[in-house]
Amino acid sequence: MSKKVAIVLAGSGVQDGSEIYETTLTLLRLDQLGIKYGCFAPDIPQHEVVDHWRGEATSETRNVLVEAARVARGEISPLDELSASDFDAVIVPGGFGVAKNLSDFAEAGSQMVINEVLREVLIEFHDARKPIGLICIAPVLVPRLFGAGIAVTIGNDPAVAGAISAMGGLHRTCPVDDIVVDFEHRIVTTPAYMVANRISEAAEGIFKLVERISEMADIKM
Amino acid sequence: MSKKVAIVLAGSGVQDGSEIYETTLTLLRLDQLGIKYGCFAPDIPQHEVVDHWRGEATSETRNVLVEAARVARGEISPLDELSASDFDAVIVPGGFGVAKNLSDFAEAGSQMVINEVLREVLIEFHDARKPIGLICIAPVLVPRLFGAGIAVTIGNDPAVAGAISAMGGLHRTCPVDDIVVDFEHRIVTTPAYMVANRISEAAEGIFKLVERISEMADIKM
Repeated sequence: MSKKVAIVLAGSGVQDGSEIYETTLTLLRLDQLGIKYGCFAPDIPQHEVVDHWRGEATSETRNVLVEAARVARGEISPLDELSASDFDAVIVPGGFGVAKNLSDFAEAGSQMVINEVLREVLIEFHDARKPIGLICIAPVLVPRLFGAGIAVTIGNDPAVAGAISAMGGLHRTCPVDDIVVDFEHRIVTTPAYMVANRISEAAEGIFKLVERISEMADIKM
Repeated sequence: MSKKVAIVLAGSGVQDGSEIYETTLTLLRLDQLGIKYGCFAPDIPQHEVVDHWRGEATSETRNVLVEAARVARGEISPLDELSASDFDAVIVPGGFGVAKNLSDFAEAGSQMVINEVLREVLIEFHDARKPIGLICIAPVLVPRLFGAGIAVTIGNDPAVAGAISAMGGLHRTCPVDDIVVDFEHRIVTTPAYMVANRISEAAEGIFKLVERISEMADIKM
């Protein structure tokens, strides 16, 4: 039976949602490997709506699930329907939506609070020892979710790496085309657009992450 | 000097803008081949805004350039700044935005009118004998733009193929992993999500289209 991976989205667009290329590249590699996937997003208002042309916040209101449905081509479910028992692994792509909608990291830094539905389901995956992949800014969730001493990367940004350390995480510097693996906790991270200047660079690290998640899902432990 | 390809976008999301995966896969393959690209979209209101979660039109208003900036990560220019003399080729990804924002094909069918700025610049590329790639539904523009007898594909949809024929085009049935090339007019088309059930299927045809556009741009004629 083919493997299934859950994808947690935070909207559609780097400034206020899920980073579109990171999401697309994740789905591409999963599908190329013959792995099925299901997309999920919380049915909540976006923290803000950013005009990606002008780079400014607007007065609009949008819904995270409704916007995430754009990058999922409508094939998406509310996050509260996600159960770890239905999937072999979970991946959270990056984008500011992770720090604005799935958590308040963008404002609260190391004092952040994580969306409660997301917190519960990621802990469910972790407790079931199913692999968890986090891309770009998403690794900041790890120390708050799973406790101290877990190795992750967000590339080389000193402020974000410092916040990870302040929450008890172990930040490892990592180039854009590589991944950091915490074998004990079965967590794989890659910097992607925290570092990438080109889409093909982001693709290299993301493809590596998806391949590693797939391998780890084959080995129950 | 490295080649440069212009990408014309119509928003961000399959139902009312550019198809996100088709756009991302086009940019990925260009970048993997070391080809530079520039994204452009018209600064006009969207024809409509579709809730991609419910699959229904909403009462919202959005701007094509502002939304297209999401899939371009903010690196985009107004379409009226696009000049064929600055690029070696042009590619138009699909999505309903092509039939709702770049033209009115979705409502008018073979009676469609094409956005005047787009019409002028695509004719400029054609007159300069620079290769033109069109993905998914975008090939419907070809007979109206460049006249009768040019071979294109939108896969195998009878209604859309019929409309292409009614406008004087030559529609060729084509599988998702392949392209149709009109050598005389230097036009390359692929069905992508007119046919694709999976992202990896769409990728095969789109990668082939980008590779062919790149090869054709090397041969001036």
